[in-house]
Amino acid sequence: MKEIEARRSIRKYKSVEIDKKIVDRLIEGARLAPSGNNRQPWHFILVTNRETREKIARTAHSQTWMLTAPLFIVCIADIKARMESDDEFYVDEETASFELKRAIRDTSIAIGHILLEAVSLGLGTCWIGWYTQKEIRPILGVPEDKFVLGIITVGYPDEVPEPRPRKSVNEIIHNERW
Amino acid sequence: MKEIEARRSIRKYKSVEIDKKIVDRLIEGARLAPSGNNRQPWHFILVTNRETREKIARTAHSQTWMLTAPLFIVCIADIKARMESDDEFYVDEETASFELKRAIRDTSIAIGHILLEAVSLGLGTCWIGWYTQKEIRPILGVPEDKFVLGIITVGYPDEVPEPRPRKSVNEIIHNERW
Repeated sequence: MKEIEARRSIRKYKSVEIDKKIVDRLIEGARLAPSGNNRQPWHFILVTNRETREKIARTAHSQTWMLTAPLFIVCIADIKARMESDDEFYVDEETASFELKRAIRDTSIAIGHILLEAVSLGLGTCWIGWYTQKEIRPILGVPEDKFVLGIITVGYPDEVPEPRPRKSVNEIIHNERW
Repeated sequence: MKEIEARRSIRKYKSVEIDKKIVDRLIEGARLAPSGNNRQPWHFILVTNRETREKIARTAHSQTWMLTAPLFIVCIADIKARMESDDEFYVDEETASFELKRAIRDTSIAIGHILLEAVSLGLGTCWIGWYTQKEIRPILGVPEDKFVLGIITVGYPDEVPEPRPRKSVNEIIHNERW
């Protein structure tokens, strides 16, 4: 697929706003992702506010290039979407729960859809995961039972990076058994 | 993207083998997925052997429809690809490690690529996650520090399922903050 081949992590964006209809298409891509038991355990916060983006970038080890992106999509895995219980939960990087792993799995597929849909729309993205739950959640008012799985910077690319090196097929493929 | 819209979970396949070149393209889609620090923490076992597929299907709560698929791709998240240490690890559904969450995240993106690439090639897939690490790993000789994230059945579809219901956009989108 051409979108898979063309996708790069983009860390420099043009100063051009993204039309709402284009953003809607990104979200539609995520919404149609598959999920275990069709639970769709995902939420997305669309952040364009400059001050909020600055706070997020600071939390992400002050990667100032992030601010060239006019839109951040904060992607959240929601363990509650997989549970019947109304009990209070707390999740973070060290939570053991299988349900959290499942919510991370499903939300990752949905985010992957956003990255590819972006390519098809001429947009660039970068998935940022370098922050802590403890620091990022208060900035956005995210409850402590939700796991912020990634911040996706979105914008029109202002760089054309080379592909990153990859493992060879032989390093990742096994025939019939390990 | 048309592949995102057209993707369905397929649980009935035609009795038609899949050409090796086609399988190579599925794997190439996975290989090009993004990953944290470009660690590419994934492995894939291609299983066509009937007896092995029977054992796997039995472990997956005897979902006998799985056997109509000529190929299973067993997808594995490898925590070791994210660690410098040579120490022995054991991972399973209840492992707390952040590194395992990251490996699951990255491998999920790669599997998502396989599902979409399959659509573009006229193939159908279904992601099976209903088994235990303890039962599935010995069937394939997978070491105990690897997490079997999914079994993907692959074949030419012999059914045309309707799309599954989805949450509305309003249920999953937040503007500027939670």
